[in-house]
Amino acid sequence: MLRTHTCGELNISHLDQTVTLCGWVQKSRDLGGTTFIDVRDRYGLTQILLNTDTDAAVRDKARGMGREFVIRVTGKVLERTSKNLKIPTGEIEVAVEELEILNESKIPPFLIEDDTDGGEELRAKYRYLDLRRNPIRNNLVLRHKLAQEVRRYLSDLDFMEVETPVLIKSTPEGARDFVVPSRMNQGEFYALPQSPQTFKQLLMVSGFDRYFQIVKCFRDEDLRADRQPEFTQVDCELSFVTQEDILNIFEGLIRHLFKTTKGIDLGDFPRMQYADAMRLYGSDKPDRRFGMEFVELNDIVKGKNFGIFDSAELVVGINAKGCASYTRKQIDELTEWLKRPQIGATGLIYCRYNEDGTLKSSVDKFYSEDDLTNWAAAFGAEKGDLILILAGNTNKVRKQMNELRLEMGSRLGLRNKDEFAPMWVLDFPLLEWDEETERYHAMHHPFTSPKPEDIPMLDTAPGDVRANAYDLVINGSEIGGGSIRIHDRETQSLMFKHLGFSPEEAQKQFGFLMDAFEYGAPPHGGLALGFDRLCSIFAGLDSIRDVIAFPKNNSGRDVMIDSPSTIAQAQMDELKIKTTI
Amino acid sequence: MLRTHTCGELNISHLDQTVTLCGWVQKSRDLGGTTFIDVRDRYGLTQILLNTDTDAAVRDKARGMGREFVIRVTGKVLERTSKNLKIPTGEIEVAVEELEILNESKIPPFLIEDDTDGGEELRAKYRYLDLRRNPIRNNLVLRHKLAQEVRRYLSDLDFMEVETPVLIKSTPEGARDFVVPSRMNQGEFYALPQSPQTFKQLLMVSGFDRYFQIVKCFRDEDLRADRQPEFTQVDCELSFVTQEDILNIFEGLIRHLFKTTKGIDLGDFPRMQYADAMRLYGSDKPDRRFGMEFVELNDIVKGKNFGIFDSAELVVGINAKGCASYTRKQIDELTEWLKRPQIGATGLIYCRYNEDGTLKSSVDKFYSEDDLTNWAAAFGAEKGDLILILAGNTNKVRKQMNELRLEMGSRLGLRNKDEFAPMWVLDFPLLEWDEETERYHAMHHPFTSPKPEDIPMLDTAPGDVRANAYDLVINGSEIGGGSIRIHDRETQSLMFKHLGFSPEEAQKQFGFLMDAFEYGAPPHGGLALGFDRLCSIFAGLDSIRDVIAFPKNNSGRDVMIDSPSTIAQAQMDELKIKTTI
Repeated sequence: MLRTHTCGELNISHLDQTVTLCGWVQKSRDLGGTTFIDVRDRYGLTQILLNTDTDAAVRDKARGMGREFVIRVTGKVLERTSKNLKIPTGEIEVAVEELEILNESKIPPFLIEDDTDGGEELRAKYRYLDLRRNPIRNNLVLRHKLAQEVRRYLSDLDFMEVETPVLIKSTPEGARDFVVPSRMNQGEFYALPQSPQTFKQLLMVSGFDRYFQIVKCFRDEDLRADRQPEFTQVDCELSFVTQEDILNIFEGLIRHLFKTTKGIDLGDFPRMQYADAMRLYGSDKPDRRFGMEFVELNDIVKGKNFGIFDSAELVVGINAKGCASYTRKQIDELTEWLKRPQIGATGLIYCRYNEDGTLKSSVDKFYSEDDLTNWAAAFGAEKGDLILILAGNTNKVRKQMNELRLEMGSRLGLRNKDEFAPMWVLDFPLLEWDEETERYHAMHHPFTSPKPEDIPMLDTAPGDVRANAYDLVINGSEIGGGSIRIHDRETQSLMFKHLGFSPEEAQKQFGFLMDAFEYGAPPHGGLALGFDRLCSIFAGLDSIRDVIAFPKNNSGRDVMIDSPSTIAQAQMDELKIKTTI
Repeated sequence: MLRTHTCGELNISHLDQTVTLCGWVQKSRDLGGTTFIDVRDRYGLTQILLNTDTDAAVRDKARGMGREFVIRVTGKVLERTSKNLKIPTGEIEVAVEELEILNESKIPPFLIEDDTDGGEELRAKYRYLDLRRNPIRNNLVLRHKLAQEVRRYLSDLDFMEVETPVLIKSTPEGARDFVVPSRMNQGEFYALPQSPQTFKQLLMVSGFDRYFQIVKCFRDEDLRADRQPEFTQVDCELSFVTQEDILNIFEGLIRHLFKTTKGIDLGDFPRMQYADAMRLYGSDKPDRRFGMEFVELNDIVKGKNFGIFDSAELVVGINAKGCASYTRKQIDELTEWLKRPQIGATGLIYCRYNEDGTLKSSVDKFYSEDDLTNWAAAFGAEKGDLILILAGNTNKVRKQMNELRLEMGSRLGLRNKDEFAPMWVLDFPLLEWDEETERYHAMHHPFTSPKPEDIPMLDTAPGDVRANAYDLVINGSEIGGGSIRIHDRETQSLMFKHLGFSPEEAQKQFGFLMDAFEYGAPPHGGLALGFDRLCSIFAGLDSIRDVIAFPKNNSGRDVMIDSPSTIAQAQMDELKIKTTI
C-alpha cells in the first residue's frame, strides 16, 4: 500500500511511530513559523505539521499545495499541544519528514466542506466533488450498511438472493416502460423492469420458497423531486405463508435496521385498516408522529341552514392544538394556501377556543355558542385550540384535509426527523377507478389476491372489494407494500377480465405466468421496500437524491456525464430504428 | 406459517411429534395397502405414509394426486422400518392424519428429476419447472452463497458497495451498447453500462477509497454458448494501492470463496508474464491443470531443407505423454480436426517415441534418428510419448497449438472439473492492432495505465507497450481482469490520441472523467470478476447458463416470457422513434 494508516486511524497509542498517510489537503494554516495541514480521506482527518525542523525543500513543496491536492506524507506521530477532542485523531499530529504530491487540483468550483457554497446545479455537474463532502458520503456509507443488514437479516431467515433479468418484456399494465430496441430480433424491443414481480412469482412456482433481491427498477414517468427513473427495491417473496407471517418478518427487518444502525428500539408497529386511515388521516400513508386525527362532523353540523355544510358529502375537521392565537391574517394565509391548485380547497372554516373560554367561529351566523361547544367536545378541544374544518366531496375533502394536517404538523414542529412512527396499513381496495381511462385499475398490481369473501362483489361493487394487500408506512412515507398473490389460473383470469383485458390479450402478455399456475403453484406472497426512500428516512432527508451516488435531475438527465445524448447514425441503422422528431 | 417444519428438517429427534409440512408430490408408490409419497420442497424430501389406519376420505384424496401437486399434510413423525441413510430425513416418515391439496398440477412436460428427459428448448420454455430440479436449484443456492461471501470478505476489508447508474451514456469504445430512447429528452438515448468503469473511477476521485458492487452489465454482441447480453460482475476499485496490493486482496478473495464453499485450500497463485503465457501456452488464459507446455523448435529444426519448417516464423510442439500408440488413423483424424475453419491449421507433424526406443516421425525424409533424438530431448520426451508439431506465423500457430493442447488435455483426461488451477497473468500489452479497422484498440480499456518506462515506445512501437494490467485465470477461463488506471489528464489524453480520438471527440465522450482528473484524483486501480463464469467454475459447469435463473438463448430471446417483443405504436410515438425494417 502507499500508506501505513488511514487518516482516521492514528491516536495516542501510535506516538513516536513513523507513519505514511495519503489523502486530500482539506485546509492549511500558518501560525508563526509552523504550518498545520488537515489531510482528509474517507476515514477521517489528520493534522500534519511542518515547522523550522522540517527540511526546507519539503516546506517549499508544501507551500505550493492548494486545497484538494492529493498528497502522501511520512513522518512521526506526536502528541498535540492543543488537542481537538471532537475527532478521533485530535490528540495527535504528524511531523512531516517526506512529502509527495500525488496529484494537483485546480480550485474546486465550490467548497468541499459540510456546509458548501455550491448551488444544486453546480454540485450536480461536479457530483464527484460533492461526493467528497462528509454529509453526502455519510449517506452512502449508511446506505451500504443498510444493504448489508438487509442481506444479513434475510439470509439468516433462509431467503436466497436471486438475480432476475433486466432485459424483459413490455407490458401494458402499470407505469410507462423504458424500452430497449433489439438488434438480433429486429423490430422488437426489450423493456426494463418496473419490478421483478412476475419473475419472483415464478421463483415461488419453482419452489425457491424464500427469495429476495436488492434490485434496480425503472419507470419512465414524469419526475418529481422525489422520483428517479431508476430506483432500488428490496424485493421479497415467500411461499406457504399467511399475511401475518409476512408482516412479522418485515416488521422484524425494519426493527433490526433501526436497532443496528441507529440503536433505536421501535417496538411493535401499529396496524390500521385502509378505510380507517382514510377516515382518520385522509391518506393511506398517515404521518403518525403526531395525532391531530380527523373528526367527522356531519352528525353535528348539518341542519342549521348553513348551505355549505348541508350540501357537503363530508364535513371534517382537525384540532390545531394551541393555535387559537392565530390572527385573522394567518388564517387567511392558510386559506389561500389551501386554495392553491395543487390542493384546490374552496374555503376554510375555523373555530377558536379562546383562552377566556369563549368560542368564536367563522360561521357564527349559523351556529350558536352551544353548537360550538358541541364541536369542541367532538374534538376534545381545550382553551387555546383552533379547530379547522373543510367540507365537500368525501375523497377530495379528505385529500385536502390531509394536506392541511401535515402542514399544521410541520408548523407546530410535530414532524421531527429523529422520531420514527412506523405502521402497517392493511386491507387496501383491490381496484381503483381511473377517471381518465374510465375503467378500474389494480391498486397494487394485477397479481394481488382479493379477499375470498369479497370475490362475489367483483361483479356488483368492484370498488368495494378488498385485497390481501398491505403497506408499510414510516413518518407519512410509503416505504413498501405487498400482498398475498393470486396463485391459480382461474382467479388470475378473472382479475384480468375485470381490468379490461380480453382473454387473448391476457394470454399474450401474461400467459407464461398463468400457464405456470397450472403446474403446482404454491400459495405465496411478498413485499417490496423502496430502498432509496428507506435510506433517506434513516438519513433524515426529504429527498432520495442524496442517498444515490449519481442521481438524475428532474428532466431525467445526468448533467455530469451529459446523458442521455444523441447516438451515431450507424447505431440506429444497426438497430433498424430512427427518430421522428 | 402454513407449515411447522420444512421437508428437509425432520429426523429421529422429532419422533411422535405432530407436524405440518407443505411441498410438492415428488413420487408416490403403493406397497400392499400402504401408500408412500415423497414430498419435496427446497430444503429436502420427506416420506409421508397412508395406510389402513388413515381416514378413508384422506386416502381417497391422496389417490387423486399426481406428480407436482402442492399439498399440505399434518401427521405424526414415525421411525421408518426401511431407512434411507442417504438423506437427512431418511430415518423417519410422517403418518398422514390431515391432507389438503393446495394446488393441482398438470402433467409436467418433462420429468422434474436430477436426470430429466426434457430437451433444452422445452426446459427453457418451462424454465420455472426446470428450476425445480435439484441440480439447477443447487447452482443458484451456490451463487447466493458466493455472493454473500464476496460481500462479507470485501466489506470486512472496508470496501463499500455503491450502486452506479444503469441508464448512462453511449460511448464508441468497447463492445456495442444497448440503448434506451429517452422520452423526456427526445431524439436522445441512454445506454446500458458495459461496466461501471468510469463511475467507479469517479468514486475514487470522490475519495470513496474502496468500492465494490455486484452489478449487472450489458453487451449487445452476437452470442456464443457462453455469453449473455446481460451478465454480472463483481466490480472493485481501490485508491492508494499498487498492483501487488490488488493481486493480494483478490487472490485472498478467491481463496476465501474456495475455502468457505468447497473447503479447498488453493495456496498461492502462480504468476506469469503475458509474454510467457503466449510462449508456453499460446494463450493469455492457460489451463494449468496440466503441463504439456509448448517447446519452440526453430533452433533445432531449421536448416535441414524441410521447406515448411525453414520458411516458418515459428515451429512449436507439445509432448502428448503416452500417446505413441496413436494409430495413423487417429493422427489423421487429429489433423483433420486441426484443419477445421475455426482452427485453420494446414498440417500436423508428429514424432513417435516408440516403446522399443526408436523414434519415428512424419518427416523422416528430412530428419535423421539423431535429429529426432534431439527433438525428444527438447521435450523431455520418454518412451511411449508422441510429439505434435505445428509451423507457421507465430500468432496463428500459437493459437492453433493452444487448441491442440487443450484438446489433447481433454482426451487424456487432464482437465478434471474438481481440480482448480488459478493463476495471474501479468503485464498485458496496452494496445492491440485491429486488422479490420486498421488501428490500435485498448486491450483492456482506454483507462488502463501504461508502464511508465514503456511510455516512450507509444510513438515508436505502440504494440510493445506493456500495461499495468492483470488477469485472473482459473482452469483456462478468464475469471477477471483489471489494471492500475491512468489518473492524470495528460496521460489520459495521450491514450485517447493513440486510440484515434480527436481531442474534441475525447472531450465530448470522456470530458467528465478528464475534468475530474484535474481536481485531485488519487492513484487508483481495480479489478472486475465475471460472476457468472466464477459461479459456473464453482458448479463444475461448462456454460454460464445454468448459474443464471432466467437466461436468454443464443438469439438473445427469453423464450419463457417471449421477449423481446413488438411494442404498441403509441409507445413508439411517445418516444419519437420508429422502426425501419
